[in-house]
Amino acid sequence: MEMGQAKEVEGCKEALFTALVEILPSGQHFRKCYTYTSQTEAAFHCVHFFREAKEKEKEKLRRWRKSFVHVKNPYLDSMDEDVLYHLDLGTKTHNLPEMFGDVKFVCVGGSPNRMKAFALFMHKELRLTDSEEDIKDICAGTDRYCMYKIGPVLSISHGMGIPSISIMLHELIKLLYHARCSDVTIIRIGTSGGIGIAPGSVVITDEAVDSFFKPRFEQVILDNIVTRSTELDKELAEEIFNCSKEISNFPTLIGHTMCTYDFYEGQGRLDGALCSFSREKGLDYLKRAYNAGIRNIEMESTVFAAMCRLCGLKAAVVCVTLLNRLECDQINSPHDVLVEYQKRPQLLISKFIKQRLGLCDQTS
Amino acid sequence: MEMGQAKEVEGCKEALFTALVEILPSGQHFRKCYTYTSQTEAAFHCVHFFREAKEKEKEKLRRWRKSFVHVKNPYLDSMDEDVLYHLDLGTKTHNLPEMFGDVKFVCVGGSPNRMKAFALFMHKELRLTDSEEDIKDICAGTDRYCMYKIGPVLSISHGMGIPSISIMLHELIKLLYHARCSDVTIIRIGTSGGIGIAPGSVVITDEAVDSFFKPRFEQVILDNIVTRSTELDKELAEEIFNCSKEISNFPTLIGHTMCTYDFYEGQGRLDGALCSFSREKGLDYLKRAYNAGIRNIEMESTVFAAMCRLCGLKAAVVCVTLLNRLECDQINSPHDVLVEYQKRPQLLISKFIKQRLGLCDQTS
Repeated sequence: MEMGQAKEVEGCKEALFTALVEILPSGQHFRKCYTYTSQTEAAFHCVHFFREAKEKEKEKLRRWRKSFVHVKNPYLDSMDEDVLYHLDLGTKTHNLPEMFGDVKFVCVGGSPNRMKAFALFMHKELRLTDSEEDIKDICAGTDRYCMYKIGPVLSISHGMGIPSISIMLHELIKLLYHARCSDVTIIRIGTSGGIGIAPGSVVITDEAVDSFFKPRFEQVILDNIVTRSTELDKELAEEIFNCSKEISNFPTLIGHTMCTYDFYEGQGRLDGALCSFSREKGLDYLKRAYNAGIRNIEMESTVFAAMCRLCGLKAAVVCVTLLNRLECDQINSPHDVLVEYQKRPQLLISKFIKQRLGLCDQTS
Repeated sequence: MEMGQAKEVEGCKEALFTALVEILPSGQHFRKCYTYTSQTEAAFHCVHFFREAKEKEKEKLRRWRKSFVHVKNPYLDSMDEDVLYHLDLGTKTHNLPEMFGDVKFVCVGGSPNRMKAFALFMHKELRLTDSEEDIKDICAGTDRYCMYKIGPVLSISHGMGIPSISIMLHELIKLLYHARCSDVTIIRIGTSGGIGIAPGSVVITDEAVDSFFKPRFEQVILDNIVTRSTELDKELAEEIFNCSKEISNFPTLIGHTMCTYDFYEGQGRLDGALCSFSREKGLDYLKRAYNAGIRNIEMESTVFAAMCRLCGLKAAVVCVTLLNRLECDQINSPHDVLVEYQKRPQLLISKFIKQRLGLCDQTS
């Protein structure tokens, strides 16, 4: 703020200077002139004006912080270099803001081949001018994960299970933070086992729950257990569900998703190397899950919801179901049927992204 | 047993028939004749003889069962077909006994590239006659895991974390069971973070412990938590340690290994997207781990130990340490140094396998 502007206010220099001290860090400008009956009135008005401006600045900062991807780690900014080991990227070896600054959509899924297929599909859908051959695995230096960038869309694999996706998310969130990305939407497009719904149905998760049907993620920190919320963005789920109404090829529904640590014993399967419960007990568990509102089971949603929520990423989970667990345990549909099922969440999310980008008139 | 033989025993028909009923299922033959002072004495002798024979049969069966890889699932044998979905193999589509019946050593590790490198290395070390080009990924139909077979050695990747290795182990154990494999030794050759030891040291695990330093694995079965032992084969660990004495290039030691569900918050790292504890608290945790006998941290050993133990697989965990966690959090050694570190467990296990196969005079 320039002193010349401050001088325009007549008869309340002292009050103005007091207020100036308060307002200076936010850099707000004071442009108007007032006339007052007394110096006290002028002082009060000044202070009130500046206080209001300061609050507005704070709110702006809050919104700014909310829309930017952030980390919850006070140590990170003091690090000289950040090596994202499992992505084979780093703050000194790569210009992350230049490489990733424009990312608005991050799509993640277990299988590397599937995430490459999604990248190629999005490239076609977004009608980008660069050649398909230019879509290269950004994490080619490591075989832990693969990553492709298609305009504002990032497609990344995360392997199977909570620990595997958790490592990827820590490093992805740091990547988006270092790249100063804002307003990022992240969607897990995966496969799952359905409960009481037709195989091939797509489930948009409204609540990610654990094996005990609770909407929580228990994170072990050192030797303590911290419980985190697994709330997902309700508006985003609704928006994706609305997109699905335009697709008639397959059913899409909103439901709870159960996330387990194990594919066999933890999901009530009778076909693992180990099985210590009866057919009846297994089926009873799945039926209780259905009655609790659970429509599919997978192995990553709780930690995905918890971490994204803490770091300012609007998150959704959209999984196709490969079988109906009330009917069988084994995934033995023909290969081409399973391949077609796995394209369904991709088709839905491509529609959603195109709609967000104002390209919804393009047919897929 | 033939009735003619039974008739050779004079004066104790009744006792013999009683004993026969007891012994028949084991098919033991009774060949000797005795003379007795009374019918009672004869009867007692007969019963004693048969009881002893039955115990011997049982012991034989126990040993047989112990040496063969077995499943603990009463439902598996009644299945018409078993599709090992994540390995892209099955009992109807593949002749598993023919493909895998001769497997004696299974080596597993997180990274697919590393397990391919190990397969090529073992091919060279075992001096097999087939060409290197014949070593193909048996699970090429899926990108979840990769698998290579080199004579009696199977090399398989398992991804990162307990859930990922658990899926692979369920299907691997079923594969070995269907293939009627016996006397199988399984070794995890991985990477880890060291505690209080020089980077590049190889740790042979004597006890796999959880985040609370307890030698247990908590398996969620339906909505119950079942605690399993994580005991590893002590003789096998000693045998591998003895092999290491012949390798002077790097230090090898025996110690406890801690297995966590998370690479960042769960291992006391200050460089994740989330960190809610102080530098001091993190270091204190690692020092307490060291004092409890823990020498390295990884993310698969407890479930690996628990599952192999239950299914008759003699198991060992042999991991190289990429850094000393009492000194730093980030893995930022030069690429070639890390590559050389990762070859160390491979070198040690190749030596062990060659020794077991009587090829120990061959230099590596």
